[in-house]
Amino acid sequence: MNLLLLEKKDFITPDRVLISGRRFEHIQKVLKAEPGTLLSCGLLNNKMGTARITRFYADSLELAVTLDMDPPDPLPLTLVLALPRPKMLKRIMESVTGLGVKQIYLVNSWRVEKSFWKSPVLEMENLEKYCRLGLEQGKDTLMPRIYQKRYFTKFVKEELPIIGHGTLCITAHPKTSNICPTSVNKKTTLVVGPEGGFIDLEVTTLEEAGFKPFSLGERILKVETATTYLIARLFS
Amino acid sequence: MNLLLLEKKDFITPDRVLISGRRFEHIQKVLKAEPGTLLSCGLLNNKMGTARITRFYADSLELAVTLDMDPPDPLPLTLVLALPRPKMLKRIMESVTGLGVKQIYLVNSWRVEKSFWKSPVLEMENLEKYCRLGLEQGKDTLMPRIYQKRYFTKFVKEELPIIGHGTLCITAHPKTSNICPTSVNKKTTLVVGPEGGFIDLEVTTLEEAGFKPFSLGERILKVETATTYLIARLFS
Repeated sequence: MNLLLLEKKDFITPDRVLISGRRFEHIQKVLKAEPGTLLSCGLLNNKMGTARITRFYADSLELAVTLDMDPPDPLPLTLVLALPRPKMLKRIMESVTGLGVKQIYLVNSWRVEKSFWKSPVLEMENLEKYCRLGLEQGKDTLMPRIYQKRYFTKFVKEELPIIGHGTLCITAHPKTSNICPTSVNKKTTLVVGPEGGFIDLEVTTLEEAGFKPFSLGERILKVETATTYLIARLFS
Repeated sequence: MNLLLLEKKDFITPDRVLISGRRFEHIQKVLKAEPGTLLSCGLLNNKMGTARITRFYADSLELAVTLDMDPPDPLPLTLVLALPRPKMLKRIMESVTGLGVKQIYLVNSWRVEKSFWKSPVLEMENLEKYCRLGLEQGKDTLMPRIYQKRYFTKFVKEELPIIGHGTLCITAHPKTSNICPTSVNKKTTLVVGPEGGFIDLEVTTLEEAGFKPFSLGERILKVETATTYLIARLFS
């Protein structure tokens, strides 16, 4: 936790908060903070600043909060991800949020196991929990928007061209010799397939929607590694 | 598994192998391969090629093997990693091996929990198991060399200058305004600290050994994400 992420309901006066539960325990046991300690903090979807610990109670603590800084700029990236297996999804939500991604589409594809869609991880409350960890890690306050799309073809044909309009449109696909560009640093829509990759028909459907396939060379990466790798490569 | 990784003991004749256990189950259940199916394969620390399935038995299968290709070039990177918590270590071993890293030093540092050094994951046989998964994922045959160094100062003062000689020497450190270079594509020795970062004294010791601290900007990444991110950034 590099940033204490606050919500409106934490405030007991306009500049004082009372924190209990997971955040309290982390501040007490991991950060080993004491009264007087200054922590980075931020209000969810709002400003960032500092919080000074004023008082410890048995299972909560009080902090005096100053919010005077803007959160870091969002990454100009929309990430479209074939739904990964739930355990990996948790980590990806946390890591891409920590990297500054603000638009995430979870989509179906041929090689996505049907059972993944039934996972409780997909409940919005749970997804936001992992994103929250990413915000605390990456020192940010802006919660990403997450959309779930169960119909690949309909989504790619009808919605994706609008989402990708005016952006660099990329499909990450190991089976092509076009190597992914570096340091593009402009608005990008990146589509990442499932483990095992998109099937040929899906790659063609994406191409017809304006998404050119690019690979990362001869090595094939796991979805989790590929996602971080692509973001680093595109925005460096 | 994008490559069937073979060992000498798998060979029953100079060009035929018999596979059982985990690899057999993966080929049968995940890849759903049949007699005649061609798979990418490679002999550990040796050539790569193709394997054609010739026969299925109840709990094993036989393949005819041709080894006629070199494995991909290693990444010109030596990775020095403050020992991460065991669960994360497993994933990092797999991912950096999949990315082509061939020299890995696991080192102690102030913020490494002592208990991590007692984990069974650190037994060489176990570390190699995760690296093997990385080779199968990344389509490579060259097993990384892994070294464990329990004394930070002694290692950094006596060994690291020799390891880093003639290479670009970098410490990844969030608390500096020097931003990490991109696309260096030359021999590099990269030092990555523990969660919470190196303490100031460690950063100074590393600087005295020729390792300049660089950050990745205002966002702070988890060790696992940072490692992949740095590799993508340095070698793109």
